[in-house]
Amino acid sequence: MLFRPLFDPETSTYTYLIGDRTTGEAALVDSVLEQVDRDLQVLSELGLTLRYTLETHVHADHVTGAGKLRQQTQCDGVVPAGAMVECADQTLQDNEVLMVGTIPIQAIATPGHTDSHMTFLVDQTHLLTGDSLLIRGCGRTDFQSGDPGLLFDAIVNRLFNLPEETVVCPGHDYRGQIFSTIGEEKRWNPRLVNRTRAQFIEFMNGLNLPDPKKIAEAVPANQQCGQVAA
Amino acid sequence: MLFRPLFDPETSTYTYLIGDRTTGEAALVDSVLEQVDRDLQVLSELGLTLRYTLETHVHADHVTGAGKLRQQTQCDGVVPAGAMVECADQTLQDNEVLMVGTIPIQAIATPGHTDSHMTFLVDQTHLLTGDSLLIRGCGRTDFQSGDPGLLFDAIVNRLFNLPEETVVCPGHDYRGQIFSTIGEEKRWNPRLVNRTRAQFIEFMNGLNLPDPKKIAEAVPANQQCGQVAA
Repeated sequence: MLFRPLFDPETSTYTYLIGDRTTGEAALVDSVLEQVDRDLQVLSELGLTLRYTLETHVHADHVTGAGKLRQQTQCDGVVPAGAMVECADQTLQDNEVLMVGTIPIQAIATPGHTDSHMTFLVDQTHLLTGDSLLIRGCGRTDFQSGDPGLLFDAIVNRLFNLPEETVVCPGHDYRGQIFSTIGEEKRWNPRLVNRTRAQFIEFMNGLNLPDPKKIAEAVPANQQCGQVAA
Repeated sequence: MLFRPLFDPETSTYTYLIGDRTTGEAALVDSVLEQVDRDLQVLSELGLTLRYTLETHVHADHVTGAGKLRQQTQCDGVVPAGAMVECADQTLQDNEVLMVGTIPIQAIATPGHTDSHMTFLVDQTHLLTGDSLLIRGCGRTDFQSGDPGLLFDAIVNRLFNLPEETVVCPGHDYRGQIFSTIGEEKRWNPRLVNRTRAQFIEFMNGLNLPDPKKIAEAVPANQQCGQVAA
């Protein structure tokens, strides 16, 4: 497997490129509109053909590159079932597996940041957590049908049951920590360690965060697959 | 081996944490003063003891965390031979190997960005190139005894002779590409592909870049091991 994190400094978003060296097929997870030209160049230089763009969820902080990527390549846009993105080519249900060449990408329902958020387990080793589990943190739960109780359940009952050595690859990181592992997060994530479900809900409901700068633009654009004028 | 890139967004600097899971020993390469608290927390949470801080060169764009790390831990500060950092505990010559537990870190002389710049080959798989070879770029050569001809020789004759699958881990990246490989850079690095040594020198000498914002502060501080008041 070819696995490559790509970073958008303006929104601190990680896009993940997954490529099968044998078949030359590739997927991009959580692409960013402003980085599409870079991503296409990387794909080209690695000799890969983009088959899929995947979204962990309908983002509120950036516009997906999926629309532009679909215009410029033959890829399919894949979103979580229930994400209300009618223009998508495919949806993924909980536990469904999408194959990128010989590489399995398993969808794991992790609602809480949004109601249809999915985490993707790539090749059983790399966990693309989007805005569910972050490194020593987690996604916010105060808009887009967010629900802190559901997020707690998803992280504790689904993600923390994966092998400890599973590599955690978040959708964002604001402290320059690019990777973590399930073992580390179980032991050191300050939002989850020594907190009951009720305490986590109370903590999350008290965060009182400002809205993301791009939310008014990003959510409707992402519900339209990030489509932009040709 | 535990290998973890850590990013400083302000200066786009990558620090690399190298840990031996069996002995619990660790090294930090090109640490950043402002990120020392984060780095110490990561080391602690991973159960690692810092043995060494290494510098690829005397940085002009950030102050090393080595001084603060030496104050707060029992680590040794290691710099390239010839770097004129008299306070360092150890120096590394070309081809010398430093062991971090059972993990070998081999120094490879790559002058050009500065006259004593070293690249570190970790465990024969990960190449920490500092400001010599960057992803689809290279370090500048217009101050601190920089020399574009020497940089060309170092990259082409030393680094490009390593196996193609060697992972390139640069000291900086400004486009969000975190990793590359020697094979990719040989094929796609626009500063080196299809340029003779003379053309490379001419190109580099014509860049006419502004000085790094922190140069007046960073170089003398780094020559003093980044020492700060206790």
